[in-house]
Amino acid sequence: MTYSQATLNGDRLALTRLLTQVENDTLASREALIELFPHTGKAHLIGVTGSPGTGKSSLVNQLALHYRKAEKKRIAIIAVDPSSPFTGGAVLGDRVRMRDLSGDTGVFIRSMATRGSLGGLAKSTANMAQVFDAAGFDIIIIETVGAGQSEVDVARLAHTTLVVEAPGLGDDIQAIKAGILEIADILVVNKADRPGVENTEKALKSMLELAHPTQRVFQHHGTYMSVAAPEIDSQKTIWIPPIQRTISTQGKGIDELIEAIARHVAHLNHSGDWKIRERERLEVELDALIREALVNRFRAEVPQTQYDAVLEKITQRSISPLEAVRLLMNGRK
Amino acid sequence: MTYSQATLNGDRLALTRLLTQVENDTLASREALIELFPHTGKAHLIGVTGSPGTGKSSLVNQLALHYRKAEKKRIAIIAVDPSSPFTGGAVLGDRVRMRDLSGDTGVFIRSMATRGSLGGLAKSTANMAQVFDAAGFDIIIIETVGAGQSEVDVARLAHTTLVVEAPGLGDDIQAIKAGILEIADILVVNKADRPGVENTEKALKSMLELAHPTQRVFQHHGTYMSVAAPEIDSQKTIWIPPIQRTISTQGKGIDELIEAIARHVAHLNHSGDWKIRERERLEVELDALIREALVNRFRAEVPQTQYDAVLEKITQRSISPLEAVRLLMNGRK
Repeated sequence: MTYSQATLNGDRLALTRLLTQVENDTLASREALIELFPHTGKAHLIGVTGSPGTGKSSLVNQLALHYRKAEKKRIAIIAVDPSSPFTGGAVLGDRVRMRDLSGDTGVFIRSMATRGSLGGLAKSTANMAQVFDAAGFDIIIIETVGAGQSEVDVARLAHTTLVVEAPGLGDDIQAIKAGILEIADILVVNKADRPGVENTEKALKSMLELAHPTQRVFQHHGTYMSVAAPEIDSQKTIWIPPIQRTISTQGKGIDELIEAIARHVAHLNHSGDWKIRERERLEVELDALIREALVNRFRAEVPQTQYDAVLEKITQRSISPLEAVRLLMNGRK
Repeated sequence: MTYSQATLNGDRLALTRLLTQVENDTLASREALIELFPHTGKAHLIGVTGSPGTGKSSLVNQLALHYRKAEKKRIAIIAVDPSSPFTGGAVLGDRVRMRDLSGDTGVFIRSMATRGSLGGLAKSTANMAQVFDAAGFDIIIIETVGAGQSEVDVARLAHTTLVVEAPGLGDDIQAIKAGILEIADILVVNKADRPGVENTEKALKSMLELAHPTQRVFQHHGTYMSVAAPEIDSQKTIWIPPIQRTISTQGKGIDELIEAIARHVAHLNHSGDWKIRERERLEVELDALIREALVNRFRAEVPQTQYDAVLEKITQRSISPLEAVRLLMNGRK
């Protein structure tokens, strides 16, 4: 039996081995992905991103616990860690906090190093999510450290993206993080028992108002709620990210966050955005595979010696890169 | 006369217009880049990266002032700003500090929005650097906000990369920044009059020691100096990033930083790394252009209707993305 068939049958060891193959992008894993693909498309992909220090791993832990215990869902967590070898220790520390979930076969946690290019990382993550989806996991949480392009790639992958902030991380972080507001479906202010929580919320609210100038973001029940409140969001096609307070270490605000996620899923379904996001995600994947196949074919067709000779001419400034490309491309049938 | 010829003749207005064309990637700009390319390869490209709040713009200002006044060099500054529309204001504020340099025709400052993909940004920046190089600017400083992949791309572009830190930005930032140590040629601790400067230096030193376990990083003249000290670095092929303290608002430490940059250039020349970096940079550029040309050709050859039909089949899970690529690729001559 192949790993993919065994994975479909619920074999956990086969799943583990297949994930390793997928991460290493082996030829066998590519065949497995083809076999598994018809079984995908059922899972809800939730992206969770935020700076170190926002307590995002603990929040993911709480979300997984809730979905597991209250809703009996099967949960997979893909934790994407920064590429530096120096931060390995801290990441292992985070994983220790996942102990509440260990020993439960309905929960699968997979850490992934961000080896190689960020593009490669997005591909591996997308492929792993497909494996979990085919294997029958209902909810796949993809946890990333907020570090630029990777959030955008995660947002493209997930149906629902949570951006986690925390009070007291400084205005500098808020400034650099402004760009990721654009990818947030739900804003979480974790560690809400810390001083400065009002300022953090206020800053997020101001940024939301800049991003959605025609919509009024109003305060409700002690948290800032958007016009995308439960009673109206199913009629609306515009979703304004709500701001949810949580204290993940105490499990506070988790129920409300789970409700916000459910509202977002309802919104995606009613507005037709779920289907649009699925299509966009698959198109991004298709385009990446096309690009890869084109480059591989080019490499197979243009001899290394010819490529090296052209590069040498470029370094000598006797031909420009643009002219070199024309030369190399015209040389192909 | 074309913009590129006028630019070579020192026409500042033509240079400005050409830079805009390059940023917009117009067809005319591509021809101009071909014309300019033989005149490139002389400038020293210095990358300066760091989080908001590290005083990096002020440091760039000081470096430019020094090179301009003490060494009579012509300086170009390419300031790459984060993509968010929300941070526009702060960036303009930074630029105001450049007033010491305004009115000097030997200095050219160009701000660039990070529109579109980060890959596109790296391309625009590389092309702009080529224009400045051909136009006879001796030193091109590329300033980026530390935000992940963009630093790596800048490092690939620059001969010398400065990573700027500052005390009091929190341990969280240090953790996320660990990965960029790998791209730093020189570490700058700016705002060195702030409390906590020793801790920041200590943290950087520890990380350096992890990265270079066989080398001893020792303290010297109040700053941490690496074994790549002036008397030995020209013999060594290993460069260990020195840590330089600066207070850019007071112009302190700038002379020492300029010396460290000069030592790095000497190291690059003696070790042969200058040529290696040039070649790597041009190879990255060539590969990006090849990829772009391949995708453009594919789009021209595969009808949109065929592509859309295949994508639709994927969303219906009746064909996997990998099978779809094989289908589309085999359909091509």
